[in-house]
Amino acid sequence: MTIRPATDADRDAIWNIFHDVVAEGNTYALNPNISREDALAYWFGPGTHTYVAEEEAAADGAAVPRKPTASHSHRARHILGTYILRPNQSGGGSHVANAGFMVSTSARGRGIGRAMAKHCLSEARRLGFRAMQFNYVISTNTTAIRLWQDLGFEIVGTLASAFRHRDKGYVDVYVMYRSLVA
Amino acid sequence: MTIRPATDADRDAIWNIFHDVVAEGNTYALNPNISREDALAYWFGPGTHTYVAEEEAAADGAAVPRKPTASHSHRARHILGTYILRPNQSGGGSHVANAGFMVSTSARGRGIGRAMAKHCLSEARRLGFRAMQFNYVISTNTTAIRLWQDLGFEIVGTLASAFRHRDKGYVDVYVMYRSLVA
Repeated sequence: MTIRPATDADRDAIWNIFHDVVAEGNTYALNPNISREDALAYWFGPGTHTYVAEEEAAADGAAVPRKPTASHSHRARHILGTYILRPNQSGGGSHVANAGFMVSTSARGRGIGRAMAKHCLSEARRLGFRAMQFNYVISTNTTAIRLWQDLGFEIVGTLASAFRHRDKGYVDVYVMYRSLVA
Repeated sequence: MTIRPATDADRDAIWNIFHDVVAEGNTYALNPNISREDALAYWFGPGTHTYVAEEEAAADGAAVPRKPTASHSHRARHILGTYILRPNQSGGGSHVANAGFMVSTSARGRGIGRAMAKHCLSEARRLGFRAMQFNYVISTNTTAIRLWQDLGFEIVGTLASAFRHRDKGYVDVYVMYRSLVA
């Protein structure tokens, strides 16, 4: 698996992942019916660094395109996930990073989120950020919470009943944070 | 003092206040050099309710325009402050409101922030929001913190060293929150 900056050629694959994740509706506070245009404007917004995790396509994997599409490598690549990294605030708050992660529904459970998160922390340090903040970690998303805690994030705030879960009703949301400096 | 929805005729007055508040640089995480265009796009953003606090101009008050400008009332009015009210998140998070307040530097200490905040809580209830969240209350902004606490907000999260204060260096930032339902 390779993690690299996204290009315009990745927009279709990113939209497919984005659409599936948002349509699930229980991990992001985004409109499940968000348009492709608005989704990509968000994921490729000004000041946002956008990355993809990809692997070389297997010879006859079910999730692999039938024909290799145009790509830099002239070999079929398969996008497994994507993440964004950006300043969480402007001005005096711009030294704190924010990030968002999405893994293809067909690639869950393979450690892709963890690999992207480690890559993201490394990129954030490289770009000079001093801390990273997740503004909106839904408390029922225990897989994400365990991963962030494992990577050094702490729950620094709880927003009571701030998310309306499709099945569980109003549930709490956490703010998670970690320093990137000694 | 009257608090009412802002109109296009208020844009000059709002920009004057916005510019002064952001140029001070120690209460908002915004670029102190933000353009008028970007500032007004933010303050009048999609889904954002924008309000102003105004008073009838005194006959010869220093801050009053020499000539009455065109207005609905055909009388000189003086904008003292402005606030915005909007959903803090989309989708499953859209029942939590966010708000931002700015008071003219020449009108501080007169309770205008408090009056706007009370108006804002009332408007938020009227619009059906179930809670209100301030994402970024800089810990050195003690006037604001005391006001929010007095109005029922609690500090529900602390972001360590998340703001670079011009004089004090890195200082903590609070997330503040209150329910609007019983």
